[in-house]
Amino acid sequence: MNWYLQSSENSDVVKSTRIRFSRNINGFPFDLNKEESKRLENKIKDSLYEIGYNLKFFKLADMDEITKMSLVEKNLISPDFVLNKNETGSILINDEENICIMIGNVDHLEIQVFNCGLDLENTLNLAIEIDEKIGQILGYAMNKKYGYLTSYPNNAGTALRASVMVHMPALSRTKNTRKVLDAINSFGINIRGVYGENTESTGDMYQISNKQTLGISEKEIIENLQVIVEKIIKQEREARKLLAKDDVSFEDLIYRSYGILSYCKKISQEETRNLLSNIKLGTDLGILKELTDLKVQKLYLYTKPANLQKFLGNQYEPIERDIKRAEVIHQIMNEK
Amino acid sequence: MNWYLQSSENSDVVKSTRIRFSRNINGFPFDLNKEESKRLENKIKDSLYEIGYNLKFFKLADMDEITKMSLVEKNLISPDFVLNKNETGSILINDEENICIMIGNVDHLEIQVFNCGLDLENTLNLAIEIDEKIGQILGYAMNKKYGYLTSYPNNAGTALRASVMVHMPALSRTKNTRKVLDAINSFGINIRGVYGENTESTGDMYQISNKQTLGISEKEIIENLQVIVEKIIKQEREARKLLAKDDVSFEDLIYRSYGILSYCKKISQEETRNLLSNIKLGTDLGILKELTDLKVQKLYLYTKPANLQKFLGNQYEPIERDIKRAEVIHQIMNEK
Repeated sequence: MNWYLQSSENSDVVKSTRIRFSRNINGFPFDLNKEESKRLENKIKDSLYEIGYNLKFFKLADMDEITKMSLVEKNLISPDFVLNKNETGSILINDEENICIMIGNVDHLEIQVFNCGLDLENTLNLAIEIDEKIGQILGYAMNKKYGYLTSYPNNAGTALRASVMVHMPALSRTKNTRKVLDAINSFGINIRGVYGENTESTGDMYQISNKQTLGISEKEIIENLQVIVEKIIKQEREARKLLAKDDVSFEDLIYRSYGILSYCKKISQEETRNLLSNIKLGTDLGILKELTDLKVQKLYLYTKPANLQKFLGNQYEPIERDIKRAEVIHQIMNEK
Repeated sequence: MNWYLQSSENSDVVKSTRIRFSRNINGFPFDLNKEESKRLENKIKDSLYEIGYNLKFFKLADMDEITKMSLVEKNLISPDFVLNKNETGSILINDEENICIMIGNVDHLEIQVFNCGLDLENTLNLAIEIDEKIGQILGYAMNKKYGYLTSYPNNAGTALRASVMVHMPALSRTKNTRKVLDAINSFGINIRGVYGENTESTGDMYQISNKQTLGISEKEIIENLQVIVEKIIKQEREARKLLAKDDVSFEDLIYRSYGILSYCKKISQEETRNLLSNIKLGTDLGILKELTDLKVQKLYLYTKPANLQKFLGNQYEPIERDIKRAEVIHQIMNEK
């Protein structure tokens, strides 16, 4: 089962962990023209077997729109990558989809490793292992003083971005999100919506990541982030306890969301996200017993427009999608 | 089974039919003081067996609040009667509750006969039969020129009020209610909310009744009303067809209402009425197959505050009632 359908100990608050290394290959300029892109692409394709990890190579230009968008929805690739590098960009990805390397995005390589829940250490270790192997094979652009060199100087040094996706519905319902986010910000931590910088949070989901990459070790980066995320988990869980105290109103909110999802005949993605936020909260607190964690994860994933169409193996107009979304929701809910 | 839980041919639009005769007894002033009320009460109690129809006598003052309000909610007695005549008023009622006579309200007697759906003729015939029998026994105040004499001159003559409760959800959703009601008004027909004059419509339910009582026969009154109600039925059914054309949005509305009622943990009476209006529309059109007509009727009745408490055999504070209402809804929905 793919990591994004799995759950772990902290999955009640932390949806996923991602480690990303930005790397550039020796002998190529930071900004690749079409010809240089092709040369880099070939160099990587030639090394595919040597790199291992069952990684497969795909050119963005060869993938259909729905497949590309389904990867964006899974947070495996960034929307900007598809938008700006569709002609020259490519990816390396394995079947489990826990390793996904963007080629020719902002930097030559963006090596990403994913896991469900909060698991910074193991995710970092696998990322380091892959990173070192690729470095030996392709040769990275490095500098003794600054470490890894990157297109944007503020990514240099470790060139590591560790990020964690958190679900904070109770902090939101008790109007404490802003307070918590402001506190985090002052600790040198970024908070963003689900699809990265400048995106809005939907369904109370936030991406928390380190700001600093230079003059700090990889270990320190994840230790700092770990401390902050544990604080968020604690505060979110306390807010949930508070909410759960007003037993009936809270249960009512959760079960009405469940009732609407169970019986609607059409539903937008936005409404789905908001109702799922209540439902996940309900299952996480053991109030809503009708759904398993797996079903909730599936509901999250397969109600997103591109993954919905992937799931159904067919393409639909936006208006039809709202109807199909309701059908898929019922289908997943009723799975044995 | 009581008439108000039954359904008939036209129950998709017409909830119930009521015939009411206002009568005053010879030898009593229109406005009864306490002593005269007592005397009238005794006269009626003495004739109870002779009148027949298994009618039983109850003083309002002897009934508990919940029982009285449950009768108001069933439209068997008027709210003003309970409010203004609680000390002196009384009723005659049978077990089936299709005959209910208010004693000492605006007029000495208000003889009422009820039936489900649209059934003006049979309801009138039974009312006439009861009326004639009581007239023979007690002796009515009459005038050769005007017919029956009443406290309010505008009720004189036949002193007959025929009324029909209609459910017009589709006319409401297609914004045609006002147009239809205005047209009816010009035909000498009254339109009111469920609990009579000056009350608002809730859940798209309206009471349609004759204005004129003098210089017109009983037969003419019900014939006129029948024509108007048949027009309303036709227009409401046409509006439903129109709504049902936009298949999915309409189904969605109905099934979301069903989903919320199925899973809510607390719910107000007003929200219940509005959701039930959608649900009744859904079952009437054969779209919602999950509920029988009987269950819908029960849901309407037993979610009203007093009947809710009657149903549960217990008294609850308003805030608890919203929780109990949700429980009763689930209980009725899940009845075998």
